[in-house]
Amino acid sequence: MATQNKAADATPETLHRIFTVPEAPDSTLSKIEQEISQNLNRFLQNHIAASDRSLADIESDFSDPTIPEDPAFVSDHTQFLLDKLVAQSVHTSSPRFIGHMTSALPYFLMPLSKIMIGLNQNTVKIETSKAFTPLERQVLGMLHNLIYGQDDAFYQSWMHSANHSLGAFCSGGTIANMTALWVARNNVLKPDGDFPGIHKAGLFSAMRHYGYQDLAILVSERGHYSLGKAADVLGIGRDQLISIPADGNNRICIDALEEKIVELNQANIKPIAIVGVAGTTETGNIDPLNALADIAEREGIHFHVDAAWGGATLMSNNQRHKLAGIERADSVTIDAHKQLYAPMGAGMVLFKDPSLVASIEHHAEYILRKGSKDLGSHTLEGSRSGMAMLVFACMNIISRRGYELLIDQSIDKASHFARMIDAHSDYELISEPELCLLTYRFVPQRVQAALAIASDEQVDLMHDLLNDLTQFIQKRQRECGNTFVSRTRLTPEQWQRRTTTVFRVVLANPLTTHDILHEVLEEQARIAQQSEFAYPRLMTLAESILKAC
Amino acid sequence: MATQNKAADATPETLHRIFTVPEAPDSTLSKIEQEISQNLNRFLQNHIAASDRSLADIESDFSDPTIPEDPAFVSDHTQFLLDKLVAQSVHTSSPRFIGHMTSALPYFLMPLSKIMIGLNQNTVKIETSKAFTPLERQVLGMLHNLIYGQDDAFYQSWMHSANHSLGAFCSGGTIANMTALWVARNNVLKPDGDFPGIHKAGLFSAMRHYGYQDLAILVSERGHYSLGKAADVLGIGRDQLISIPADGNNRICIDALEEKIVELNQANIKPIAIVGVAGTTETGNIDPLNALADIAEREGIHFHVDAAWGGATLMSNNQRHKLAGIERADSVTIDAHKQLYAPMGAGMVLFKDPSLVASIEHHAEYILRKGSKDLGSHTLEGSRSGMAMLVFACMNIISRRGYELLIDQSIDKASHFARMIDAHSDYELISEPELCLLTYRFVPQRVQAALAIASDEQVDLMHDLLNDLTQFIQKRQRECGNTFVSRTRLTPEQWQRRTTTVFRVVLANPLTTHDILHEVLEEQARIAQQSEFAYPRLMTLAESILKAC
Repeated sequence: MATQNKAADATPETLHRIFTVPEAPDSTLSKIEQEISQNLNRFLQNHIAASDRSLADIESDFSDPTIPEDPAFVSDHTQFLLDKLVAQSVHTSSPRFIGHMTSALPYFLMPLSKIMIGLNQNTVKIETSKAFTPLERQVLGMLHNLIYGQDDAFYQSWMHSANHSLGAFCSGGTIANMTALWVARNNVLKPDGDFPGIHKAGLFSAMRHYGYQDLAILVSERGHYSLGKAADVLGIGRDQLISIPADGNNRICIDALEEKIVELNQANIKPIAIVGVAGTTETGNIDPLNALADIAEREGIHFHVDAAWGGATLMSNNQRHKLAGIERADSVTIDAHKQLYAPMGAGMVLFKDPSLVASIEHHAEYILRKGSKDLGSHTLEGSRSGMAMLVFACMNIISRRGYELLIDQSIDKASHFARMIDAHSDYELISEPELCLLTYRFVPQRVQAALAIASDEQVDLMHDLLNDLTQFIQKRQRECGNTFVSRTRLTPEQWQRRTTTVFRVVLANPLTTHDILHEVLEEQARIAQQSEFAYPRLMTLAESILKAC
Repeated sequence: MATQNKAADATPETLHRIFTVPEAPDSTLSKIEQEISQNLNRFLQNHIAASDRSLADIESDFSDPTIPEDPAFVSDHTQFLLDKLVAQSVHTSSPRFIGHMTSALPYFLMPLSKIMIGLNQNTVKIETSKAFTPLERQVLGMLHNLIYGQDDAFYQSWMHSANHSLGAFCSGGTIANMTALWVARNNVLKPDGDFPGIHKAGLFSAMRHYGYQDLAILVSERGHYSLGKAADVLGIGRDQLISIPADGNNRICIDALEEKIVELNQANIKPIAIVGVAGTTETGNIDPLNALADIAEREGIHFHVDAAWGGATLMSNNQRHKLAGIERADSVTIDAHKQLYAPMGAGMVLFKDPSLVASIEHHAEYILRKGSKDLGSHTLEGSRSGMAMLVFACMNIISRRGYELLIDQSIDKASHFARMIDAHSDYELISEPELCLLTYRFVPQRVQAALAIASDEQVDLMHDLLNDLTQFIQKRQRECGNTFVSRTRLTPEQWQRRTTTVFRVVLANPLTTHDILHEVLEEQARIAQQSEFAYPRLMTLAESILKAC
């Protein structure tokens, strides 16, 4: 049991060692690390079993709120983490995990991550980040260029300018969206004569000064939930996040938006932003961005595009036309930890006009001094890691053309899966993929036949049972751990906007094969028959309808 | 030049390899990784040279805003990162880097970080984090227990409860403070009769409903700049972050606070929170938390303690009395990436009452469903990494007694340095250390003598020159890269609150020795004499004053 470099007792010597001496090459930690270095996928396959331990059971391993008095051996604790945490975590990089936006990571990110964490830079200020500051500004420049494609002179002027910012790195899309709306709100309620601006005087004073009845943010009903949270945090209020109906393809209805704007103008309610979605979290659809830009320009409203998911599509010259108009947005959110294949924690917001961030600029005595290039002067967060390094590495090692292939493949795969669902007699495609997301559900052939001739009431009843069944299948499938899809609720036009529970699939993982997709359908059909309630009732009901006919 | 596993062209095959095949054992990346594993400190010492390249020069390496069309070889790009980024980054873990709150990291965090990043969990929801969810809840429980010390029954009831939360993991202290104030604001302007609450109706409607003239946040003038940012974001306004004078020890003046509260009450301005600082970013001093708690209780105001820095002190039974009263706070911010020695990106906010977060609870269709244990229902951020794992490992491997030693040592070291400065004829201690932070400046002995007899005007003049000199020394010292201290501006009582530029030192790195501290003073005295403006003028002025006397 003897291992070197253990921290058996908390003494100054053992503690000193923790900060200096590396693990012995034959320690558990070293072995695990080597295994991961050699093949992350094999490591994950061996260590993340299809475990059917219940959450309550797992919780029992994590139930002691006491900080241990005495130190654990590094190797012992690593073994604990391996058994109780790693083995019970979710294999997000598995090609069979196609339910959320976390995919396999390129292997080169593992060792680079270790360097990034070892360097422990803090990008809030140059003094703790030095070269990481220009690096981060360059990555923001690259993404800005991808969206807005300004000329060289533009980037040479603004990319490294102390008092400007092409955007901000964030922990994720939520903070990115919040930052964009913060900027938009502060620009609407900006300093004016004696009024010092909302940033100083607050929203209440600002509203009294400007005389608006209220504020609003406009977005389709398919907008991400972070926008509601941002509306809450920014003091605008969730009810003032005005939800505009989406059409049958989950895209904002322009007419409904126009009507709402007229209504708001008449009521003296000031929209601080129109948010375009590219693409929606649930179905991957993209709003008509040019039409939104036209309206925003005409009305003088900040135009933000939430491309947290779809922004990566700009990498493909074959697909980027789907986001036409994004270059007219005042601000854009992109998550590099989604389809740019960076690890969790790499959100970004980009600003068309590098001066726009002036409305949120702030300083302090010990850092972020005026004229300094400290990145923290224009971010909602304070201390931040050097995550930009990993995005930078992806840009260089994968390259634009590499991303194009990845994006094109993922969209092709989604299209293939959609046709597979169409061709299968027991499934119904709910949303056609525009990017690599689609939704569908299991509807046995006989039920489909019955639905075609059923009365409205009977359809309602079958619909409820189908919703139960979809939920049952998704939960059981998740618990089995062989494959994973997520689920959500939509209101599809083909079902007269009935609330419909659906499977949601994201096909971003390059390792997901057609065979796996086939397997998913097979497994779901199998699980359906294990349902003791919804499935038999549904079949009985369908038969009785078909018989009556 | 041939290396295996290169991504020479963007083809489906090379891309597939990026996601599966590890680096060859003799590749640059593998060699670097091994080097880091073997000894991070030696790696950093070898690779982070004391570089005096100017920022403008470094920027030239990061000036191309074009995403490369074609892929780089992994090894080539790694070499680029090594030469241009790593070599030009800041050696934050150096024992000679004593200017900011980034210290050496325990070595076991490097391989664990790789596991954490490789697992790529997203803790916003159970479906992408599973065991990481109870783990994160346990870490929050441990910190809650450290602060509030509730009984076992309390933690068994609330730690894993779906509709409650002992706190939230955040990317850093800024988001933690913002979350606490968001909760406080929403609880002050909560639903009331027909009024649906600020979270729905927004701040403007809320103010009209409650009839307040304005809102306020109360904190000492030494409060962290993130509070001003939070006041801006939350729509309260920076001017409504009321700055209460601090005493000669940088602690909030209770009398001044009492007076201000009377004034606000008379003006019908509602304070949403009193913020206690433990300790201040610039000097490490701790507000009288019990006195603040008394006032907050009496007035029914949310009491938040910003212990981003000082919270770790609670680990030491010898020092925790300095934070007496923190257990009466409604919410507390602690950064694990400060003196809990976790990597950047591990902030936390803890709530005394696990129901308090109800005011910011939110849901979505595809995740965060009501009754789920998804952590994202109570966080300001959305998608987040499994950073809690690293904090958990620190708690177990360092242990409470280990932290106690680290904290005690750091405070002893600061005290030793203070005595060293006192004993040195050419230095002046500005703030006595309460934790492991102190501030001082270089004042040559003859200047000290002159200051003692100078007129007010002469003192002003010498003070200005000293400020210039301090800035000169700190900048030059940073550029030389041998040792690093930061600088800030204070208004010390002993100088009649003249604005005083000072060196700021944070002695958190366990590897910093007394010899290094001695070296810092030697180096600064040497640099002072290189000043072509401030130093000679100061000396001439001092001599003329002394002569005239």
